[in-house]
Amino acid sequence: MPRNPQLNKNGELIHLLSTEGLPRDILTHILDTASSFVSVSDREVKKVPLLRGKSVFNLFFENSTRTRTTFDIAATRLSADVYTLDIARSSTAKGESLLDTIANLSAMAADIFVVRHSESGAPYLIAQHVAPHVHVVNAGDGRHAHPTQGLLDMYTIRHYKKDFSKLSVAIVGDVLHSRVARSDIHALTTLGCPDVRVVGPRTLVPSDLSHLGVRVCHTLEEGIKDCDVVITLRLQNERMSGALLPSSQEYFKSFGLTTERLRWAKPDAIVMHPGPINRGVEIESAVVDGPQSVILPQVTFGIAVRMAVLGIVAGNEA
Amino acid sequence: MPRNPQLNKNGELIHLLSTEGLPRDILTHILDTASSFVSVSDREVKKVPLLRGKSVFNLFFENSTRTRTTFDIAATRLSADVYTLDIARSSTAKGESLLDTIANLSAMAADIFVVRHSESGAPYLIAQHVAPHVHVVNAGDGRHAHPTQGLLDMYTIRHYKKDFSKLSVAIVGDVLHSRVARSDIHALTTLGCPDVRVVGPRTLVPSDLSHLGVRVCHTLEEGIKDCDVVITLRLQNERMSGALLPSSQEYFKSFGLTTERLRWAKPDAIVMHPGPINRGVEIESAVVDGPQSVILPQVTFGIAVRMAVLGIVAGNEA
Amino acid sequence: MPRNPQLNKNGELIHLLSTEGLPRDILTHILDTASSFVSVSDREVKKVPLLRGKSVFNLFFENSTRTRTTFDIAATRLSADVYTLDIARSSTAKGESLLDTIANLSAMAADIFVVRHSESGAPYLIAQHVAPHVHVVNAGDGRHAHPTQGLLDMYTIRHYKKDFSKLSVAIVGDVLHSRVARSDIHALTTLGCPDVRVVGPRTLVPSDLSHLGVRVCHTLEEGIKDCDVVITLRLQNERMSGALLPSSQEYFKSFGLTTERLRWAKPDAIVMHPGPINRGVEIESAVVDGPQSVILPQVTFGIAVRMAVLGIVAGNEA
Repeated sequence: MPRNPQLNKNGELIHLLSTEGLPRDILTHILDTASSFVSVSDREVKKVPLLRGKSVFNLFFENSTRTRTTFDIAATRLSADVYTLDIARSSTAKGESLLDTIANLSAMAADIFVVRHSESGAPYLIAQHVAPHVHVVNAGDGRHAHPTQGLLDMYTIRHYKKDFSKLSVAIVGDVLHSRVARSDIHALTTLGCPDVRVVGPRTLVPSDLSHLGVRVCHTLEEGIKDCDVVITLRLQNERMSGALLPSSQEYFKSFGLTTERLRWAKPDAIVMHPGPINRGVEIESAVVDGPQSVILPQVTFGIAVRMAVLGIVAGNEA
Repeated sequence: MPRNPQLNKNGELIHLLSTEGLPRDILTHILDTASSFVSVSDREVKKVPLLRGKSVFNLFFENSTRTRTTFDIAATRLSADVYTLDIARSSTAKGESLLDTIANLSAMAADIFVVRHSESGAPYLIAQHVAPHVHVVNAGDGRHAHPTQGLLDMYTIRHYKKDFSKLSVAIVGDVLHSRVARSDIHALTTLGCPDVRVVGPRTLVPSDLSHLGVRVCHTLEEGIKDCDVVITLRLQNERMSGALLPSSQEYFKSFGLTTERLRWAKPDAIVMHPGPINRGVEIESAVVDGPQSVILPQVTFGIAVRMAVLGIVAGNEA
Repeated sequence: MPRNPQLNKNGELIHLLSTEGLPRDILTHILDTASSFVSVSDREVKKVPLLRGKSVFNLFFENSTRTRTTFDIAATRLSADVYTLDIARSSTAKGESLLDTIANLSAMAADIFVVRHSESGAPYLIAQHVAPHVHVVNAGDGRHAHPTQGLLDMYTIRHYKKDFSKLSVAIVGDVLHSRVARSDIHALTTLGCPDVRVVGPRTLVPSDLSHLGVRVCHTLEEGIKDCDVVITLRLQNERMSGALLPSSQEYFKSFGLTTERLRWAKPDAIVMHPGPINRGVEIESAVVDGPQSVILPQVTFGIAVRMAVLGIVAGNEA
């Protein structure tokens, strides 16, 4: 069996590519480290010198201003130098291969590549080809994984619910196409969450997802009944009409999270969303802005989690 | 009467949204503070640590490389970390609302938002919704206000003319559509300037502008006669033909500032322009580059004024 | 005879516009200085404070993510503040002239302009108009010059071959349209290289190039026979079909560098390429990744050479 490409031979994290296959102690170590970084953003001077003089490259082959900004902030608060490449206009567009681009940037003494790519597996390919002191952090690859989102979700759940071992967590929406859902599921099961449910219409939540160790539910009531955490997913515009869904209104009618429906969950259930939100499509505004919503704390914890990931991988060698 | 949203209950500046409604002592305090920052840009190391570790977000919903760059420089020379969001490509484009974008960035521990928006009032809306320790600086909203341009114009006038109480100031051009003109007028009247004139054709300078406390002039000679300061405005391309103006040549024939016509003003009158200049449209090259032009000093003072504004608001709480 | 615009009256480098006309001791001084910067990128903290608080403006009127990034890295590792202007969207697009843009940025207290422009000579024009303490570095102008690429090529050759006085260097490809070739040729001849050859079809390497002091060769065998260094040039897409070349396959058949053909050169010949590479067009993958390739070290040395250039010009006054 090949070694986990995310770990060195001492079992330390050198790349973050997926929450799948990461041992529980690594996940816990990231969350614990993030915990120490949450307060940095509250300080007068929101910086620590951990990555001073390191070169972090943001390589967003697929556009995402929001996620890119969170990594930019995280790296900057660790005092790294951040370089954002406008990939659409760069040599890759001139026909240079992904690996030639990486080889070139590595020759400029890059320390960390933060990579978003529309192709599942692109960050793995990069990780296989970098020098031992260079690190890769996956910021979302195709439908495959979005591990820092998964980790910030875990941080948020642990913050509000403390112990994973007694929780019921429902993930509602387009689970089939969601890298967030996949990263959440792997992290939750590794952290010992006994009841993970995926909830949505058959076109977006096919029954064979159960092989991931989750319960598949095709009604919202069954899906969020008595659960502690409801994670709503963003409904991508391209799914809102056509073969997979009749319309966004139809979706909202059956699976949109409203204040009323939220009563099916436990009274102290928290509501999460990776953003950006389509108000009135996957979730009602009253819930977004309501007392059970922890959507903005997720964003705050996201900075700390990304600081933790960058700090941890930078400290280890292949 | 509601409290001025730019001031806290101690009357201190927490947001800069408009020069309108700002008391004279606040305006003077900004100019005095700017004065202490002018020399920073002449130093070997052009930096002061005032905003070290603060997060300044440039949110330019309407594009302006020039103004964005001046804020970037001002914040960087105060040692802040500056994040520029490519709004056109961001979540707002994905349908997220302005206030959701702001809430998200606030959750990332933003300290200051520098906002340019094509809708008048957008920065006010934002200011109403941010936490007490977060500040908003208007970098231009619709036709409404461009207060840092207004303030740098005041700085320039004070630098060359010392005392506002005896000055005649003419603002020439498309006053109707100009947020710069509006910000200048409010600042000039508050600072005690007794004679402010707006000058241009009736289509661009309608008579009812006189309610702003200015004299409306429809010939250049009357407009700049014996004045101390001539502020020429940029003629936007979209006005140069069609309903409001026959052509840019026609405009220049009647209102273009030439060396010859400048003799109508006082011999020591200064000539200003917010840039970028259309040479040969609103102003002749010989005047731009001539001895009475203070257009480049305006740019230099603009950095200092923006440093002052950022520094002052960051020091106050709502 | 007018003074070399790159040097002050003490013969010190104040702008880097071209390798043409630079005396040998200046070239050698740049390479020696670069040598001291190579190790900076290997440090834990990859920074030196040489340009702390200086403002470096990247003005790329012609897009180049790669070259822009190398200058960004070089300036950042010298601790400068780097501002990158999105020129395509800026005031220049609004009709402001190049010199007005420069005058404005100078008024914001710029220290160094790094300029790429599609017009040959644009950086010279800028250099003629800046204040004595402001410096211009040419990052590529039209077909004219790309001096930092030329210098990093010289650094690479010196690193591997030590002494220029006994070398044969072949430059293969579209020499006619290549600013890299031009900068290499001037630097090589000034540094005393006795045998510089330009190699390619008559349409891309006309005979009258011999006035540059080089030998013109129209077959690859003659061109690289027994040489110590083979510099392959990128074949621009726009040349690959039409009047100048029948097709990229045809070009590869005659001038593409393969492992087999490389045997015509000396056994220890090094192979260089400015990037980005068209694998299988101007050079075979096996050569790019082979033992004689020094293409990635070129990239590494490029950072050090650009640090040296920025550091040197910033230390001198006109």
